[in-house]
Amino acid sequence: MTNSMSAEDRKNHYHKVRMERKKAQIDAAIARADTEKGILLVITGNGKGKSTSGFGMVARALGHGMKVGVCQFIKSRTDTGEEAFFNAQPNCEWHVLGDGFTWDTQNRTSDIETSERAWQIATKMLQDPSYDLVVLDELTYLLSYDYLDKDVVLNTLSERPEMQHVVVTGRSAIAELRELADTVSEIKDEKHAYKSGIKAQKGVDL
Amino acid sequence: MTNSMSAEDRKNHYHKVRMERKKAQIDAAIARADTEKGILLVITGNGKGKSTSGFGMVARALGHGMKVGVCQFIKSRTDTGEEAFFNAQPNCEWHVLGDGFTWDTQNRTSDIETSERAWQIATKMLQDPSYDLVVLDELTYLLSYDYLDKDVVLNTLSERPEMQHVVVTGRSAIAELRELADTVSEIKDEKHAYKSGIKAQKGVDL
Repeated sequence: MTNSMSAEDRKNHYHKVRMERKKAQIDAAIARADTEKGILLVITGNGKGKSTSGFGMVARALGHGMKVGVCQFIKSRTDTGEEAFFNAQPNCEWHVLGDGFTWDTQNRTSDIETSERAWQIATKMLQDPSYDLVVLDELTYLLSYDYLDKDVVLNTLSERPEMQHVVVTGRSAIAELRELADTVSEIKDEKHAYKSGIKAQKGVDL
Repeated sequence: MTNSMSAEDRKNHYHKVRMERKKAQIDAAIARADTEKGILLVITGNGKGKSTSGFGMVARALGHGMKVGVCQFIKSRTDTGEEAFFNAQPNCEWHVLGDGFTWDTQNRTSDIETSERAWQIATKMLQDPSYDLVVLDELTYLLSYDYLDKDVVLNTLSERPEMQHVVVTGRSAIAELRELADTVSEIKDEKHAYKSGIKAQKGVDL
């Protein structure tokens, strides 16, 4: 560095120095991360983007020729964009297993029955190594409402095939599930269109 | 309620009372949200799930027969699952426009040139009402590094077609973008597989 450098040159020079240092740190982190295994991801929190994040991973997996299974535990409607789109894909098995949110049904006994039926279907996928990715959409509610035995759920997740990835979405993931997970993202609702009077929009919310 | 009810019946009864109340609140909120318009969503934060959430909305939109445009501003690789999968879809236009992260290139001048070329392609989509959804993947970095003029970007977003949805993803969204957005989700990294030595996995991370 000399004093004869222009302000712009100096900015570019400092940028290069900072970025060299950052690249060294990132390369070292990549070198340390050398384990291959099936990952358990939990995408929770009160913000928008939990289910869609799971669906984005479905697209990624299908793009690599992987086989995917999806269980939607709460939704009962089959007119969503995701169901129309992915159910038409050859390597993707899609199950809409819910009966609506628990405040729609208002019936705890039938919610528990619906949950148990749905869990049987998920369990088959979680015991079958031919599924490379399993998405358990909105499973968290079935644990936080005590509709499923959490030990059964956690054990089934723990004992799944070694290379199988699993994504669990929904608000209020219980502590034991967060502990078991390899990756936990908490999505915070900083602002939501819905709260300023904009209704749920096709392509974004359904 | 009478004292002769069993513990289980009481649990079910209280559940019903709470869920009736919750349903009334939620129904009132749905009734209030009656505006239809194109939404600007910002998915930011340091946690996993930002880009995949955008891709999930691409799937939703395609499922409704909508037309989608995607610009990836940072990524330069075209061997990702998302690109392989969505680029093969008839209603989806996919552009990989980046040159790698700024610490890979280490060259501010060429980063700015790459950013400006990419922004031209995005601008065409943002001025064309035939695109129902436009995903600007990792655009945030181009604003936080000052590679694009933020007034130009914010004005183009403000003046886009009325019913067009836009999703912007990436860390460290600038305040002005958050302010303009209808929905802002901040994804917090509570735990990440990568940090415990697990490498980026196909179908999950790429």
